[in-house]
Amino acid sequence: MPKAYENAGVSVEAGYEVVNRIKAHVARTARPGAGGIGGFGGLFDLASLGYKEPVLVSGTDGVGTKLMVAKMMNKHDTIGQDCVAMCVNDILAQGAEPLFFLDYIACGKNDPALLEQVVKGVADGCVDAGAALVGGETAEMPDMYDADEYDLAGFTVGVVEKSKIIDGSAIAEGDVLIGLPSSGIHSNGYSLVRKILFKDHDLTVDSKPEELGGETLGEEILKPTRIYAKPLKPLFAGDDLLHGVAHITGGAFIEKVPRIIPEGLAAAFDITSWDVPPIFRLLEKLGDVDELEMYNIFNMGIGMVLVVAPDKVAEVERILDQEQERHYTVGRIVKDVDGTRVQLHKGM
Amino acid sequence: MPKAYENAGVSVEAGYEVVNRIKAHVARTARPGAGGIGGFGGLFDLASLGYKEPVLVSGTDGVGTKLMVAKMMNKHDTIGQDCVAMCVNDILAQGAEPLFFLDYIACGKNDPALLEQVVKGVADGCVDAGAALVGGETAEMPDMYDADEYDLAGFTVGVVEKSKIIDGSAIAEGDVLIGLPSSGIHSNGYSLVRKILFKDHDLTVDSKPEELGGETLGEEILKPTRIYAKPLKPLFAGDDLLHGVAHITGGAFIEKVPRIIPEGLAAAFDITSWDVPPIFRLLEKLGDVDELEMYNIFNMGIGMVLVVAPDKVAEVERILDQEQERHYTVGRIVKDVDGTRVQLHKGM
Repeated sequence: MPKAYENAGVSVEAGYEVVNRIKAHVARTARPGAGGIGGFGGLFDLASLGYKEPVLVSGTDGVGTKLMVAKMMNKHDTIGQDCVAMCVNDILAQGAEPLFFLDYIACGKNDPALLEQVVKGVADGCVDAGAALVGGETAEMPDMYDADEYDLAGFTVGVVEKSKIIDGSAIAEGDVLIGLPSSGIHSNGYSLVRKILFKDHDLTVDSKPEELGGETLGEEILKPTRIYAKPLKPLFAGDDLLHGVAHITGGAFIEKVPRIIPEGLAAAFDITSWDVPPIFRLLEKLGDVDELEMYNIFNMGIGMVLVVAPDKVAEVERILDQEQERHYTVGRIVKDVDGTRVQLHKGM
Repeated sequence: MPKAYENAGVSVEAGYEVVNRIKAHVARTARPGAGGIGGFGGLFDLASLGYKEPVLVSGTDGVGTKLMVAKMMNKHDTIGQDCVAMCVNDILAQGAEPLFFLDYIACGKNDPALLEQVVKGVADGCVDAGAALVGGETAEMPDMYDADEYDLAGFTVGVVEKSKIIDGSAIAEGDVLIGLPSSGIHSNGYSLVRKILFKDHDLTVDSKPEELGGETLGEEILKPTRIYAKPLKPLFAGDDLLHGVAHITGGAFIEKVPRIIPEGLAAAFDITSWDVPPIFRLLEKLGDVDELEMYNIFNMGIGMVLVVAPDKVAEVERILDQEQERHYTVGRIVKDVDGTRVQLHKGM
């Protein structure tokens, strides 16, 4: 058995133990086409799915400093779901069916029990997304990370028929904006969240601000990011039901929504049309954050925005109801007046 | 413009500057099928490549603490190539044509000029691999990373015809092992490398050990990892020229080679059959590392091992000569005697 490498702070044995511990979690994510971990790369038999003109859609993301909240709570079994969600929701925004996922975990010291918890969360997210966990890397990097520190990034690939790519080009004046609820802060803005709550104020993860109705701050802000694969799947299968899909993440409404809006048009939101969850109001108040900036950093309760032609709204709402997915009419597409492509109104 | 987020240590402006600075580098990696960055996910039109039964092969990896050497040298424009190499060489081992790549960079403070250097290296690697850089994430994570610290991970996807997947199952007794040279240490074992050179001994990146013939230690150990896409491409195109391909990376000969060898067989290497580059002998001597363990940590001068049927060796060597790729006959496939699947001999 290697000794020099162990002495340099890299445990080959712990690496093997991680591989053994995660096997059952990986197995849970099996899906048609996926060949599992083996050889050097993860295999996925795309031909078996029968796409005629397959276009691959890929995305990568991490979870930001939400990781530090997981560490504060010593709860590591949901942050993996956040990572899957951040990646998968991005490819859903172009109409793709998630196929597979790979994770990258870098740590200061390989703690197999902790890493198993992280990968358990990744696998939970993959099951929710319908994506197979076909590969991953666990890198033990002493000196670069503290012994109890780790980072997590992910990567996903999905597929969409070329003729069914959703890119926003079909968006037209009068289209309706339908919002799907977030589960909370999701995985953006945590440097600000932590500053407001734990640096500028004397709160802890165990604090119970009355706004949260009994929940601790830690429970609220560590809630895993929602994955929208299930409610969107039947909408993708329908006949041109969606003109556009925006994943409300870093940059939120102000940056992410304009990404899909064609020139000359704007998305006009009525920000009074849904209930902003209490955590956002709490952050706004405690941090004295400008209200507009809140919509530039946080999802404010809406994790996905769907752009739907007026004559398809009833069908989309019927399918969402069937999927037991809550939804709000949050605005509509209008002529752009000032080049911003997004307008936030209070009442419309 | 957002103020609260800036005050929390996340610069939205610096993020935009990075996006602008890397555009030209991303553009250099354009290739047939790739749709570039845009929307929420990276697009790749797989149908346009004309594969009949496409199997996707994916891989993820980082560069380990070689990053710390880049930091010691304040040279950040090649570590990206290492990242691409580590990912792409893994999927090449299954016969895949690299299609696209995504990078994940986490940093303590967004330094656009530095990050541009990192992405320049990623793009150089992508060009060498023939893969398009279709997406990426730059995450500014104050508190988690020091201001001058960053981590880098990558993800790649390639494609191979189902009938041409290389998985080692065709390997037979008598097959010849052909080694392709590495460029140096590549991207594994750097925690041990740094310990031996910079902790246990009083060397620096500017030291010039006589074994290296005038080069500084820093130059030698920061040499970018080779990408084997170009020399392997014509071999993949040939008629069943390769029974197996092993990427010699973490775990090196002892762990990576057995991965492709069928039960009952072993890869017998004659470790005197190629010249081990001086850096490895230096590490072995200075670190007093057991010779066998060296072959369990480092590539020892061989970055890829090809397994070739005896009657195909001449054709494989002819093609490698044509590609101006050096190659060594480093061993052959024999009956397994002790279940190890790999044997290291001095002379055979």
